[in-house]
Amino acid sequence: MKTLIKNAWILTMDEVLTTYPKGMLVIKDDKISYVGEYKAEMEQHVDEIIDAAGGLLIPGMINTHAHVSMIPFRSLGDDCPDRLRRYLFPLEIECMTEPLVYEAARYGILEMQRSGVTTFLDMYYFEEEVARACDELNMRGMLGETVINFPTCDCKEAYGGLAYSEAFISKWKNHELVTPIIAPHATNTNDANALKEAHEIAEKYETLISMHVAEMDYEMKEFRETYDMTPVEYLDSIGVLSDRLVAAHCIHVNEHDMKLMAGRGTSVAHCVGSNMKAGKGIAPVKEMIEHGIAVGLGTDGPSSGNTLDLFTQMKIAVYAQKTHYKDRSLFKAEEIVKLATIGGAKALKMDDRIGSLEVGKQADIVLIETDSVNMFPIYDAYSAIVYSANASNVDSVWINGVRVLNHKQSIFNQQEIKIALQQEMQQFQKRAVERSKEL
Amino acid sequence: MKTLIKNAWILTMDEVLTTYPKGMLVIKDDKISYVGEYKAEMEQHVDEIIDAAGGLLIPGMINTHAHVSMIPFRSLGDDCPDRLRRYLFPLEIECMTEPLVYEAARYGILEMQRSGVTTFLDMYYFEEEVARACDELNMRGMLGETVINFPTCDCKEAYGGLAYSEAFISKWKNHELVTPIIAPHATNTNDANALKEAHEIAEKYETLISMHVAEMDYEMKEFRETYDMTPVEYLDSIGVLSDRLVAAHCIHVNEHDMKLMAGRGTSVAHCVGSNMKAGKGIAPVKEMIEHGIAVGLGTDGPSSGNTLDLFTQMKIAVYAQKTHYKDRSLFKAEEIVKLATIGGAKALKMDDRIGSLEVGKQADIVLIETDSVNMFPIYDAYSAIVYSANASNVDSVWINGVRVLNHKQSIFNQQEIKIALQQEMQQFQKRAVERSKEL
Repeated sequence: MKTLIKNAWILTMDEVLTTYPKGMLVIKDDKISYVGEYKAEMEQHVDEIIDAAGGLLIPGMINTHAHVSMIPFRSLGDDCPDRLRRYLFPLEIECMTEPLVYEAARYGILEMQRSGVTTFLDMYYFEEEVARACDELNMRGMLGETVINFPTCDCKEAYGGLAYSEAFISKWKNHELVTPIIAPHATNTNDANALKEAHEIAEKYETLISMHVAEMDYEMKEFRETYDMTPVEYLDSIGVLSDRLVAAHCIHVNEHDMKLMAGRGTSVAHCVGSNMKAGKGIAPVKEMIEHGIAVGLGTDGPSSGNTLDLFTQMKIAVYAQKTHYKDRSLFKAEEIVKLATIGGAKALKMDDRIGSLEVGKQADIVLIETDSVNMFPIYDAYSAIVYSANASNVDSVWINGVRVLNHKQSIFNQQEIKIALQQEMQQFQKRAVERSKEL
Repeated sequence: MKTLIKNAWILTMDEVLTTYPKGMLVIKDDKISYVGEYKAEMEQHVDEIIDAAGGLLIPGMINTHAHVSMIPFRSLGDDCPDRLRRYLFPLEIECMTEPLVYEAARYGILEMQRSGVTTFLDMYYFEEEVARACDELNMRGMLGETVINFPTCDCKEAYGGLAYSEAFISKWKNHELVTPIIAPHATNTNDANALKEAHEIAEKYETLISMHVAEMDYEMKEFRETYDMTPVEYLDSIGVLSDRLVAAHCIHVNEHDMKLMAGRGTSVAHCVGSNMKAGKGIAPVKEMIEHGIAVGLGTDGPSSGNTLDLFTQMKIAVYAQKTHYKDRSLFKAEEIVKLATIGGAKALKMDDRIGSLEVGKQADIVLIETDSVNMFPIYDAYSAIVYSANASNVDSVWINGVRVLNHKQSIFNQQEIKIALQQEMQQFQKRAVERSKEL
């Protein structure tokens, strides 16, 4: 199957940020087989020709930190202090079921596809269900079962996620779209043995670990008091800070932490929207990048950031940095589009396969239309994406060569998926509303 | 003409934030004649019944600071230092023409309507053209011609805006939708006499003044060095700080400034997106509100904030405040929806007529659909608006009783308006691109 896309303003996001204002791209099966100037003769031997009508063609966006199945929590207790321990943990243990994780994952995956996200790193419970949803909906996922020091909705024993992960990784490790990883919840919700064991599992299966790091004020205080270390220093002291680690948040990292992370090859999922909404602070991404740390953008769960799209995150990320440094020329639009695409791929160690529009890479591609009222005029395509666009401007999305979004219509039955989710979340919703009244 | 809207989740934004989860609202001609619970008998004597299908019904949003005709600048030099003096001023003088202001205003007004903005305060040149566009497109506008200390695109003499304003205000002062005001550009681009004269014109015609205040670092420095005062203190010393003044930005105001402003009844247009994008800082809105200053939200021009919608502004405004104070419970969603609606109306001294859904007020109403993938679930309607929604979720908009947006379709010919603008801006675009290369 060969698909040719013409008349596109292509931002390849390759090393030198090559662009083709009237470009052409060919997809052969699951890969990109041509990117460049328009060549009329290439229209001959293709199965399908798509006129992008001057739209912007970019690599699929990469959401480096999510809990997609938390859709049922969206808009619940948003402005409540310590919501994690008041709402999230209790409701998860009480009401989060295997079928609910599956239905919510399906819903959230469609939402991400609609916004141009083609790969996401997920950390949750019943992660097997998220993998099933990815397989069914042609979504690229790097998926990790949570490991945590208390009983959870999917395991009666603390640290049950370790055994779950071994089985999960073994089962999915050769899947075309799903990359199974392991996901200890956080530095302060796992003991050293569990973290080391998670690391060993990652080593054994040659995969990644993802974890919340240096996110909470109380986490910082606890590590200072207990070990006289930062969480990053602690992870390094137990051998877990490595190039297998994708550390989410990293709001409270210092110079020494960043040097350690850069030295070990640890990457960062920057979740600025979630962090700012929760009043937690803003991670020093400028310094991280200067240190050579690979940084991607993450939405966090739909209860934390509320949306699963990276347009919102790109805008907030640059606004925060420009304001912090009082410099409008800092974090130019092209730099933040990099973080959302090739930067995310590097953070997930997948840049050999995705993250840019280059021949030989997997065909994960997003077409952003420029017909909507907010997308005119365009002098600078990167600026238009970061400052003017929102998720509703995404016109078409290909993942692994399959067009999952076609002129803003999903190829999947979104209504059926929503109804299935609504049915599955009745008990959750009942308890969520009761809990709001109790608190 | 009587229109009944039923099955709506109504957020009235009245003094006690009354809501009706299964509410009904009746529009009689240009005013709201009923808001409350569903009453079957009221369906009898109406011309039109609209099923809101569980959508959120809120007052029309009020954009308290814009330069709508700057659409031609969007995405030009976004990340360039001192863009105002490098791009904006020179291109305005050289290329901004009367017909271009008109066409760009028409385009921008449709964009605002689409995003749920039903009233905007505008400050620009050839403001007569913006008034014509409002009249034509049924838009509510508070419009002011710019007064500035150098020759402009619409006047060969410095301060030509003063004479323009008198004629402009006289002509439009009794218009149903247009409220003409006067708009000195800024504290540092007008001398004291011009500011006083502008104030006298506002007094004479019983209207408002709007002006950029305490926005620029160099403005602060200049006033400290020249007068040993802040810009706000200076305005007060010359008698211009009054309840007629809507001060835009006010990023760099201190405690004493805020006391002065509160005492004089001066209100503020908070343009957080524009301010953060430019690395200028974040206005102390929490303190302003505590001082009793009326605060509304503004997008600034489409070259500064890039979008003309208040969804983007609401989100960024709360994120910025929660982060600054490290408190997720600060600036709850309902408080920021207040700023976008009734708060804006108070800032523009129009709260007797608009800003809330109450009987007797003008029918400026927005219906936000809850069918799109990003709008589920909803436990808290304010949260959904602030954290989950974007401009594309606006389904229908009424201004002064007229439905200008109907299921996301404008009643005006948007394509025709875009083509007219494209034709009119050819010379502008040519020079803009040349200028990018020169710089």
